[in-house]
This record gives sequence, structure tokens and C-alpha cells, in this order.
Amino acid sequence: MKYPNNIQKNYQNPLSYKNRGMDLEEELNLSNEYYIEMDKAYIYKKPTPIGIADVSYHTHGKVIEKAYFKEQSTLDYNGLYRGKYIEYEAKVTKNKTSFPLQNIHEHQIKHIRNILKHQGIVFLIIKINEMVYLLKGDDFINYIDTTKKKSIPYQFIQENGHLIKYGFNPPLDYLKIVDKLYFKEEIQWQT
Amino acid sequence: MKYPNNIQKNYQNPLSYKNRGMDLEEELNLSNEYYIEMDKAYIYKKPTPIGIADVSYHTHGKVIEKAYFKEQSTLDYNGLYRGKYIEYEAKVTKNKTSFPLQNIHEHQIKHIRNILKHQGIVFLIIKINEMVYLLKGDDFINYIDTTKKKSIPYQFIQENGHLIKYGFNPPLDYLKIVDKLYFKEEIQWQT
Repeated sequence: MKYPNNIQKNYQNPLSYKNRGMDLEEELNLSNEYYIEMDKAYIYKKPTPIGIADVSYHTHGKVIEKAYFKEQSTLDYNGLYRGKYIEYEAKVTKNKTSFPLQNIHEHQIKHIRNILKHQGIVFLIIKINEMVYLLKGDDFINYIDTTKKKSIPYQFIQENGHLIKYGFNPPLDYLKIVDKLYFKEEIQWQT
Repeated sequence: MKYPNNIQKNYQNPLSYKNRGMDLEEELNLSNEYYIEMDKAYIYKKPTPIGIADVSYHTHGKVIEKAYFKEQSTLDYNGLYRGKYIEYEAKVTKNKTSFPLQNIHEHQIKHIRNILKHQGIVFLIIKINEMVYLLKGDDFINYIDTTKKKSIPYQFIQENGHLIKYGFNPPLDYLKIVDKLYFKEEIQWQT
């Protein structure tokens, strides 16, 4: 053996983000940082809203002594791309056969309808079976309005969603899909 | 005297938000709620980002036991109006003769430049001398780029900003100004 056992065990391909145990949020944050650096898009994850229960005051500033996480009534990410308003929610499911709809709250569904109505670009990014799909807001709403099911079958996501391929930097170049779907451009993935 | 002294003292005109001691943030939040209710615009204040130092786990969920306020690198409010991306910062100054530029951080100024470049609608809402003005992002950047002063004189704001008149509901109908400046519509204030 060339390496001691513990080093070999930890060896991971630096080019494959998929295998580095990075979560979807990290992958999207890194992608958005890349877009900002490239002056391509200004999309940010909104801070999780909190309810503050107790604060103390110090010479260096206020410190939160107790707080609770609150639910977001909009989607997690929003910003500006090519002059357009863009907003999306990112969700991971460990479920292999379907995406449970309880992942998206009722007020978020209402919000998606409103954004669609007001000509914003809105979609879901769903990670299922280690694959990442972009599902357009209108396809999502159509599904909800025409079925009574409590989840979206994986097959529906494969057929109606759009696969976002993993890359090095950005790890998830989802704006390529946005270019194709909303700006009618051809996709070329880097290989 | 018709009323006991303590009641008379607390009497306030319910029609005048200006005099109710409501702060600018509240006035804008109420205005944005009104716009959402009227299905006119979807603009929200971003939660203040926090850095979490300690968390405890309970049967009802996670509780933040210690956290710190972090600086926003974007502006406070953003959203969607008439198919366009809109973003702004709201600031109050007690200074009567000028608006100190230290109110807007360096990375926020950079962000304003980026939003302008990418065709977003971006501006400041400044409350000074109990008057509220909308100052377009490009006028603000022009001022910064052509002067070395550490503040914007009140006279500059009066001449280049756009007065947002107080009303009942919404308390600050700033989208009227946006309609005029960005969609070339005539202003009609309700009286």
C-alpha cells in the first residue's frame, strides 16, 4: 500500500463535488458566489427569519441570548438575472420514488402563483436520487392543480424537470437551464 | 377639561401616520403588506442575517442560545413589481442638513452599481426632517462619483430626490414614484 490506511480512506476526487458530501445549499451558495464573481447574476439565499426572545447589550454591540427559527413565507433564494426577477426554493429528499409535497408549504405555493402572475422567473431545485432537477414553477403548479397526490413521482420530475449536471465551478450551473427555458438559448455543458 | 390629563396627552390623530411615532421600517412594512394584499407588488424586507454561536435541541425544535447580528451586503428590501426586479434600502437620519454617507456601507454601494448594471430598479428611501424621499440609485451613484463629501446635503435630496407623501393606507405609497420614474406614469396623490 502506498498510503497509510487513514489517508487512503479519506481520499476523494477533488473534481467531483457530488461525492464530497456537500449539501445542496452549499452547492447553490457556491454557484451563486461564482455568478456574482463573474458579474453574471446577483442571487442570494435569504437569511432564515428568526424570532428574537432575549437580547443583551455589550460595549461591542447587541447579542441575541435566545431566539427561534421562523418559517419563510417566500422562497429561499431570490435575485436578479439578465434584467429579470428570479426566485427559487431548493429541497433535498431522501425518498427515492417521489418528492413529498409537504416540503413546500401552503403559503409558499401561493407565493409561487403570485410570482408567476407577475412575470417573475420562479422554480424549484429538487435533489432526488443524487440527481438535481430544475422544475419550473408553472409545471409544479400544474401538477398540484391536476392531482390530489401528496407527492410528485420521480418519473414526473425526470420527464418534466430539467437535469442540472454537476460541474467543478460552479458546482451547479443552473443558470444554463434558465437560459434555455426562459431566454431560449441552447445548452452546452462543459465536459 | 373634557378628558383626564393622561388620556388627553396620549391622544393622536389616527389618520396621520407621520405623527404616530411609527418608524420608517414599520411604515414600509405596512405599505408592502398593503401592496401584497392588493396583488400589486411582492416586496419584502430581508431578515437581518445572524451568526449563530450556540443552539440547543428540544422536542419542539431547535432554539438559538447565542447569536450575533451580521451586516447585510445587499439592500434591505427586494422583490418583484410589474415584472421587474426592485431593491432598496431605507434609512432615517436625525441630521437636519445632510444625509451622512456612512449610512450606506461600501459593499452596499458596490451592490447598487451591480443592480443598476443588470437593469434592476434600485433606490434609497431617505427620511430626513420628517420628510421621506426616494433617491434613484443612479442619482446616488452619480453624487458619490462626483464629490468627495462624506454626506449628501439636504438641498441635493430635495432637488434630486422625489418626495413620497404620507397617506393613510398605504402609509408610504412609494410605488407611485416608481411608476413615474421607471414606468413613465403620471402621479396622482390621494388627498
